[in-house]
Amino acid sequence: MFSRLIIIGVGLLGGSIGLAARKNGVARTIIGVGRTEKTLAIASRNGIIDVAYQSFEAIPNLVGEFPTLVVVCTPVGEITRNVLGVIQHFGHSEQLLITDVGSTKENLVRAISDFRFIGSHPIAGSERSGPDAADAELFRDRLTVLTPTQHHSQHNIHLLRQFWEMLGSRVIEMDAARHDEILAVTSHFPHILSVILTRMLQADEQQLTGTGFAGMTRLAAGSPEVWCDILLDNNDHILNAFRRFESQLHELTNALQSKDAKTIERLLREAQGRVGSGEWGMESGEWGVGSGE
Amino acid sequence: MFSRLIIIGVGLLGGSIGLAARKNGVARTIIGVGRTEKTLAIASRNGIIDVAYQSFEAIPNLVGEFPTLVVVCTPVGEITRNVLGVIQHFGHSEQLLITDVGSTKENLVRAISDFRFIGSHPIAGSERSGPDAADAELFRDRLTVLTPTQHHSQHNIHLLRQFWEMLGSRVIEMDAARHDEILAVTSHFPHILSVILTRMLQADEQQLTGTGFAGMTRLAAGSPEVWCDILLDNNDHILNAFRRFESQLHELTNALQSKDAKTIERLLREAQGRVGSGEWGMESGEWGVGSGE
Repeated sequence: MFSRLIIIGVGLLGGSIGLAARKNGVARTIIGVGRTEKTLAIASRNGIIDVAYQSFEAIPNLVGEFPTLVVVCTPVGEITRNVLGVIQHFGHSEQLLITDVGSTKENLVRAISDFRFIGSHPIAGSERSGPDAADAELFRDRLTVLTPTQHHSQHNIHLLRQFWEMLGSRVIEMDAARHDEILAVTSHFPHILSVILTRMLQADEQQLTGTGFAGMTRLAAGSPEVWCDILLDNNDHILNAFRRFESQLHELTNALQSKDAKTIERLLREAQGRVGSGEWGMESGEWGVGSGE
Repeated sequence: MFSRLIIIGVGLLGGSIGLAARKNGVARTIIGVGRTEKTLAIASRNGIIDVAYQSFEAIPNLVGEFPTLVVVCTPVGEITRNVLGVIQHFGHSEQLLITDVGSTKENLVRAISDFRFIGSHPIAGSERSGPDAADAELFRDRLTVLTPTQHHSQHNIHLLRQFWEMLGSRVIEMDAARHDEILAVTSHFPHILSVILTRMLQADEQQLTGTGFAGMTRLAAGSPEVWCDILLDNNDHILNAFRRFESQLHELTNALQSKDAKTIERLLREAQGRVGSGEWGMESGEWGVGSGE
């Protein structure tokens, strides 16, 4: 499909792209760019990449002759600089297509108008990190959002869609701003809640945590560097999500303060219905149902 | 160990106690009490109980001759009534020991001063429910909190401790009020957050949720009946936990509002440290670490 796949940042996501691309024959050569010898050594050893460079400027500029896909997998704060650098380094070949895997899209897409860059966000991840956490199946049956604009050719959009589909992902196109607005609610604000729950806990209380608390604080293990970038970049939408959260929280805490059982049970039942009580085989009215700890 | 084990409420927890008790030879006969024919039929079919009754009043009163343990596994709101009823029905035999599995202890322990009742809380559960979700290993390596008071004999406390240990659990003793205060932070308030996150999400946003959001909303699938009781019974401690949460939340949202990267990254890093970055193999400064979606 591509002659060369260049992955900038061979951690969990970049590494998983490398493994999945190799498994599905997406590119003839997979080139990895990483900041540290160590990461690149692990990526090479694990069969994620064929060739390693410590900066993309060192990659021979043969793009003109071979179709090349560059996927920038750095933290959000470094994506724009890397994409612009790649465009500059590889010149103006039409054989070049560039994308990224960042969790925020609006500012990035606004900053880069080049027709060869289309933003991607594979909604897949893990609180683990680094090339050792890479997984060839990470994108299988997950959703990838593309955020093209009017100056992108159908040919390039189709090419990028094919790429993600070959890695096992479903693909949709969406406006970058709307994407960021939704991700603030489905990912970025939940991350903040996970961090705060973790910080609330006092040392002597830890022994009384169960699988419920562990599940709610799992996200807080994510990389501070990666998440600080995301939270800053999607600042406004996250603060809006926070307001949506507050009104819901006050509805429930008010019901709690006034010991309003009817309202509390209704709020819980509506939430349970959304999570899909059906699939949990819930039998309302039965005794001794899960205490959820 | 016991001649008879009577489980009142054969759902997830009661059912798991039955399976674990049988597997570890805790009692000669396991008697199940449930509100509905259906639950009792499933419990009998799955080998959870030997004999089924629709109310404990129907159980022949032979306690005087055989050591009997009664475990009340109903929703919190029904425990006191059931324990008092059991005491009344089985008379004043010293061969009787009663406990429960409720997530709240303070009000229950205050309401029942009988020396034969000692409160238990196995910190184990699931968002699933009903006897079909029962698991003989549910208590394995989990912690069970006993909340005895000065009028309980060391003999009875030791007997109950042995019971939980035979099911695979670790056991500690704790003051009931302190237990409720901690559980408000480690379980009850997190449940509320899970419910609110679920309620925040709009229908058209659902497709952009990943494993992170699923993990944060899993608890919201828990039984509204069970959780309404818990939230009402532990009302005050939960509202205190809410205040602890708010001060933490405002520290982070203020940093977000003022785009204070240093503070945000510090707060995230401290949280990551608590979750135990070590075990995740986090390499701070590496590229392309988990986007966590």
